[in-house]
Amino acid sequence: MSKKKIINDPVYGFIEIKNDLIFDLIEHPYFQRLRRIKQLGLTDLVYPGALHTRFHHALGAMHLMDQALSSISAKGIAISDEEAEAAKIAILLHDVGHSPFSHALEHSILFHVKHESISELVMEKLNQEFGGKLRMAIEMFRNTYSRRFFHQLISSQLDMDRLDYLNRDCFFTGVHEGTIGAERIIKMLNVANDELVIDQKGIYSVENFLTARRLMYWQVYLHKTTICAEKMTVQIIDRVRHLLKKKVVVPCPDSLAYFLSKNLTVSDFSSKKQGLTHFMNLDDHDIWYSIKQWMNHPDKVLSLLCKMLVTRKLFSIQLSNTVIPKKEMEKAKKATMKQLDLKESDLKYFILSGTVSNEAYIHNKHKEIKILTKDKKLVNLVEASDLPNIKALGKIVKKHYLCFPKIVSL
Amino acid sequence: MSKKKIINDPVYGFIEIKNDLIFDLIEHPYFQRLRRIKQLGLTDLVYPGALHTRFHHALGAMHLMDQALSSISAKGIAISDEEAEAAKIAILLHDVGHSPFSHALEHSILFHVKHESISELVMEKLNQEFGGKLRMAIEMFRNTYSRRFFHQLISSQLDMDRLDYLNRDCFFTGVHEGTIGAERIIKMLNVANDELVIDQKGIYSVENFLTARRLMYWQVYLHKTTICAEKMTVQIIDRVRHLLKKKVVVPCPDSLAYFLSKNLTVSDFSSKKQGLTHFMNLDDHDIWYSIKQWMNHPDKVLSLLCKMLVTRKLFSIQLSNTVIPKKEMEKAKKATMKQLDLKESDLKYFILSGTVSNEAYIHNKHKEIKILTKDKKLVNLVEASDLPNIKALGKIVKKHYLCFPKIVSL
Amino acid sequence: MSKKKIINDPVYGFIEIKNDLIFDLIEHPYFQRLRRIKQLGLTDLVYPGALHTRFHHALGAMHLMDQALSSISAKGIAISDEEAEAAKIAILLHDVGHSPFSHALEHSILFHVKHESISELVMEKLNQEFGGKLRMAIEMFRNTYSRRFFHQLISSQLDMDRLDYLNRDCFFTGVHEGTIGAERIIKMLNVANDELVIDQKGIYSVENFLTARRLMYWQVYLHKTTICAEKMTVQIIDRVRHLLKKKVVVPCPDSLAYFLSKNLTVSDFSSKKQGLTHFMNLDDHDIWYSIKQWMNHPDKVLSLLCKMLVTRKLFSIQLSNTVIPKKEMEKAKKATMKQLDLKESDLKYFILSGTVSNEAYIHNKHKEIKILTKDKKLVNLVEASDLPNIKALGKIVKKHYLCFPKIVSL
Amino acid sequence: MSKKKIINDPVYGFIEIKNDLIFDLIEHPYFQRLRRIKQLGLTDLVYPGALHTRFHHALGAMHLMDQALSSISAKGIAISDEEAEAAKIAILLHDVGHSPFSHALEHSILFHVKHESISELVMEKLNQEFGGKLRMAIEMFRNTYSRRFFHQLISSQLDMDRLDYLNRDCFFTGVHEGTIGAERIIKMLNVANDELVIDQKGIYSVENFLTARRLMYWQVYLHKTTICAEKMTVQIIDRVRHLLKKKVVVPCPDSLAYFLSKNLTVSDFSSKKQGLTHFMNLDDHDIWYSIKQWMNHPDKVLSLLCKMLVTRKLFSIQLSNTVIPKKEMEKAKKATMKQLDLKESDLKYFILSGTVSNEAYIHNKHKEIKILTKDKKLVNLVEASDLPNIKALGKIVKKHYLCFPKIVSL
Repeated sequence: MSKKKIINDPVYGFIEIKNDLIFDLIEHPYFQRLRRIKQLGLTDLVYPGALHTRFHHALGAMHLMDQALSSISAKGIAISDEEAEAAKIAILLHDVGHSPFSHALEHSILFHVKHESISELVMEKLNQEFGGKLRMAIEMFRNTYSRRFFHQLISSQLDMDRLDYLNRDCFFTGVHEGTIGAERIIKMLNVANDELVIDQKGIYSVENFLTARRLMYWQVYLHKTTICAEKMTVQIIDRVRHLLKKKVVVPCPDSLAYFLSKNLTVSDFSSKKQGLTHFMNLDDHDIWYSIKQWMNHPDKVLSLLCKMLVTRKLFSIQLSNTVIPKKEMEKAKKATMKQLDLKESDLKYFILSGTVSNEAYIHNKHKEIKILTKDKKLVNLVEASDLPNIKALGKIVKKHYLCFPKIVSL
Repeated sequence: MSKKKIINDPVYGFIEIKNDLIFDLIEHPYFQRLRRIKQLGLTDLVYPGALHTRFHHALGAMHLMDQALSSISAKGIAISDEEAEAAKIAILLHDVGHSPFSHALEHSILFHVKHESISELVMEKLNQEFGGKLRMAIEMFRNTYSRRFFHQLISSQLDMDRLDYLNRDCFFTGVHEGTIGAERIIKMLNVANDELVIDQKGIYSVENFLTARRLMYWQVYLHKTTICAEKMTVQIIDRVRHLLKKKVVVPCPDSLAYFLSKNLTVSDFSSKKQGLTHFMNLDDHDIWYSIKQWMNHPDKVLSLLCKMLVTRKLFSIQLSNTVIPKKEMEKAKKATMKQLDLKESDLKYFILSGTVSNEAYIHNKHKEIKILTKDKKLVNLVEASDLPNIKALGKIVKKHYLCFPKIVSL
Repeated sequence: MSKKKIINDPVYGFIEIKNDLIFDLIEHPYFQRLRRIKQLGLTDLVYPGALHTRFHHALGAMHLMDQALSSISAKGIAISDEEAEAAKIAILLHDVGHSPFSHALEHSILFHVKHESISELVMEKLNQEFGGKLRMAIEMFRNTYSRRFFHQLISSQLDMDRLDYLNRDCFFTGVHEGTIGAERIIKMLNVANDELVIDQKGIYSVENFLTARRLMYWQVYLHKTTICAEKMTVQIIDRVRHLLKKKVVVPCPDSLAYFLSKNLTVSDFSSKKQGLTHFMNLDDHDIWYSIKQWMNHPDKVLSLLCKMLVTRKLFSIQLSNTVIPKKEMEKAKKATMKQLDLKESDLKYFILSGTVSNEAYIHNKHKEIKILTKDKKLVNLVEASDLPNIKALGKIVKKHYLCFPKIVSL
Repeated sequence: MSKKKIINDPVYGFIEIKNDLIFDLIEHPYFQRLRRIKQLGLTDLVYPGALHTRFHHALGAMHLMDQALSSISAKGIAISDEEAEAAKIAILLHDVGHSPFSHALEHSILFHVKHESISELVMEKLNQEFGGKLRMAIEMFRNTYSRRFFHQLISSQLDMDRLDYLNRDCFFTGVHEGTIGAERIIKMLNVANDELVIDQKGIYSVENFLTARRLMYWQVYLHKTTICAEKMTVQIIDRVRHLLKKKVVVPCPDSLAYFLSKNLTVSDFSSKKQGLTHFMNLDDHDIWYSIKQWMNHPDKVLSLLCKMLVTRKLFSIQLSNTVIPKKEMEKAKKATMKQLDLKESDLKYFILSGTVSNEAYIHNKHKEIKILTKDKKLVNLVEASDLPNIKALGKIVKKHYLCFPKIVSL
């Protein structure tokens, strides 16, 4: 049976799957699971169209990888069929290790374990299942493959991951001004000294891409209401951990209980087979279902937080360029304690402070975007361009936040 | 506090909420629940972008209602502020009674109860909560309001419901050729003899709308794979009902168990308060979570069906214009029984036959689309136009199907 | 020097030129001339965005040809590099023989000569210049090439010409509901018995394409105001011919005068070198410039018509399914004669009647769209489908018109 | 007769004309003339879709003005019907004084006269014709109207002119990454101290708008090939002026000859009635027609330049951040003189040098974009934001160019 397939994508039109191994990987339950993990966690509470999944993103990134490899080949860079397959597999699976709610719960369900590490574990597992056919893909993912530009296509400041997620997120949120011109950037990709570079006439597109990415950060990824919803979810999980530790019964899907009743370290996770199995069982439905159940839990902190999230009575947030004065926090605490009739020790679940930050462009000689000038020299983006704002984009913008309940009847 | 709000919609740009009562209805948990019910049930298994919700659809339909009322007003039809508010509320809430998975489970969770009936119950409930302010909206919804064109804007062959869902479904599936030109149709709306009509120069747009709708039926709503996935889900629910009846323990969210352990009639549902409460607790997450749990249930039929759905090993389907010969079914039964080692009495969960049909345009003197000619006469669309295919679109197209498992290792 | 080039197309994103011969043909003055001939003649007087040119359309059709050839190849139909190049050249040049204002003046500047005949002459001329390299392209264009599906890709009911012009015209007019899903149709193309066919599951897309095409006819190509503007232009040219015949001096670009002062036949045109040269000199600018000059010509008929066109005081039109009664015409004549103070013999330039017609789908056994069923049989679209309206689309819809001046001060 | 009208716009969907005076102004020959002046001069030689006209732009800007006034009104700023009409008229007519080819020939046909001055003259003329009804519009345009925010909506760093042209130019060129989110910016407009300001949460949209504008400058408006084509056109006009001065016969439309045979000053222009009449006769067709005629003129310089432009053998260009060394120019001169067999004194028509520059954001206390903070203070954009690159965008980027013929056979 031919395994060709065409998948409709409102963003790119059609995504074609032309390769049997890739077809089989997409069919695998580990990859199908990504259909049940939303790309943007709780962002749909702000942008109701933003319901797209990691599944769709992974396919889209693979599609762009296909185009990028064609673009580079057409400029005379030899790429073997095996390399092309490996690069597409690596980008297809780069997010396969995401937890439910993507980044929102990345550090709540598993402490100190990044999704990339789990993606790598999953790829190893799949490599065994598929008789070693993912070896080169894993090397590219880990950056141990000899030609390093492949890794840069998978993970760098101009990788196919970013091109797809910006494209896709702006499409589904409806923030059209975030459009990045991925097609043009891909046409401008080149390879020099084994490094992924941009042809000189692409610098305005790159600048626009960096600014669009910044816009998306503040307009979408770090939108005030999104921050609030995500913080609330983190508090819910923390409270459940706390209750389980104190032996309070909290109904919980088995695979979720596995993680919330212990503090797993990276090595635990990779050494024990059941860790991965449980992790691969989890998706957004487990979390939402549990939160809905917990609305009626006798623990007031837990039930309150869950009710607030499900009925969208989200926290308010104050966002500021400077440290938020202690007394603001004290005021919020006092009001909250009175209004919600809480114990002082439980206030920490309702009054949260910290910082969020964004760096649109990273200045670091190993990570900078390199430009290939017309006379075939390689220079850093900042130097190549007469664009003073590229430099400016490298500045880390940090904001202080204070979250607290809207004082409403719940 | 001002309750104005602007919601991003990738389909229309921005949706504005300008009215306090509407704002409060949107904030209500009953309406927020629609965020967790996908518009197209399981269609995302075929079109991965089709994850949009009833929440977004309801807002979109309200947005089009706003435009339609402006368009009609501009032609000299007086519409009071009260009427405009009522019409917007009615369309906003027209789908509030949908079950999880929308149409896919419409008749599985509740037998013989249409979602419209539940929407009406919910509106009544909200009307009590909001001190009678939904009275006129309910009248329009029920078609008891004196000016019947309002009902036609909410429910007819050219209502704002259809305009929005076609627009939205083609956007999120990526089936761009389903685009219907809603904006042009709305500009062509008019009212004559208290009836919603179309100005004559809009007939080509209406024809295109009817054909686009037909395309969407066969390309999306009745897509082979979608039919399979939906039938599988129905079988899963049926099997759970069967097991519960036989007192087999099946772990089940309380609110779901409430419905699956009894056969509620309409009157049961409206007479008992807890019926509505349980129904309003249910959303897609409950179903998906349960199906995932049931993958490990000792009942083989249940666990098999659930595993097949979750890992997307969907049924195959044969679709035909003529009755599918009995022997085809026998062949499928034999092969399935052997392959899956099933009891003969359980085959009915795996081998399904029946018909699906679609009528793009309804010929019925009470329901026909009326055209307002240039000399101000009202004629039926079929007569007004020189378009022989409008008539043709009225033909009911019926197809016979036979679903059966792909014989693959599960 | 590498002759690769990428051209921005708002419709498709990028159009790539990968072939030196094609690059050179595009650079040729005969092809560059198409930059100055609008695709839709005077349609921009109704749809102000419809300013796109034959140049852009030809590139777009070539782009779709590229995709169609890939789609067919992927299904196992062998296509040589030479054939692919020829097919792309043929579609690129299929409209190179268009007169200014495209179809609007097709029969006014040259009587009884279709633009296809001139395209063929131009291709022959280019074939000489390029040392015989266009031979196969010309064979395909003429349908003398052995594999006839190539001709069908260039000219048939589902050719790349139509796919592009519908796509492009709906994009630039803003009539979005005319969207045809060209990408999906192209994926469904196949070849059987050396004939271009559609895979069965593409029938809904084809139906939608045919209806969309019909919509575009009545909404755009035969829009009332467009008909008026085109008829006025034809009258202007006719009047100039008449004046020149009567030796009245009418300032005129040389190349236009060449055609208007004689009645060339096809054979004249192909036998005399200067005919082609003059024709290739002409573009929209010559016509518009002349019409502007003629606004001040002493001949009242000519100056009136030109003023009316330039200042957009266009004719009114009555369009009817039945013959328009003589007395309507008499009424229009009388009013016009009086209002504009015209001689009776000149009324024919201002009062025009006739018919326009459209056939959305041609039933003719040699031209029908063929469907390739799942069991590899070839059937006609009408039989393959259960779509009664495909048959209906074959009906010729004919309308009678009467054009006359809006009685306004000029 | 009702004068309502709906115009299709692929950019915004529909543009509605709801006002009789505006309808009549649009019908006026002075405004209809804008149908024949392309928005982007010769840019379609690079971006073949960029054929949109000043007519469409003016309508689009009026449409955005309508939305902006609604947005501002909804925030409690009183705007009378008379003011709304005036603001829409002023933006509708802001470009009515453009010469053929828009900016490309702005200073060639008329020395030292900006198109705004002519727009003002035309408005005065129309004001007479329409019995003084344009008085307030003219005041707003001139910034003499008491409420200055109206002028800022017409002409400032965030005016409706820019919002429309960026939107429209990126749509028709296909440079989608130039998308600016006009709808969001308009929702963020406000008025404080009689000044047009942006609500604080709009700063990222404004930043994105400024960067997008910069992208469009280098990617489109100052695209190398566009610069070359524009410079060539300017040289052609200069040569014709030179020849006319030397009494060489150059066939020329009367209205063009009027300007090329004299050096008109502003006062000439406004004092003599025929100046305006001749100017209003001129459009792109006159220039293109003339250039085509001049291809065969005996003057070698003129015919060469015209042939090169018409057949798209455009100049090459060297663009540099530093002054281009004299010897480069000498080299180009020598090669050109030899290749084209030119007199040394004529080389200046073929070898051109100079600078182009762009400032994405103007720092000037009277012109800065003002932000309205949440606590209702007005601050400059640069101070309001934590965006270091806004400041950077204020830097003027200047580039040196050297244009010269591609040494090809002509």
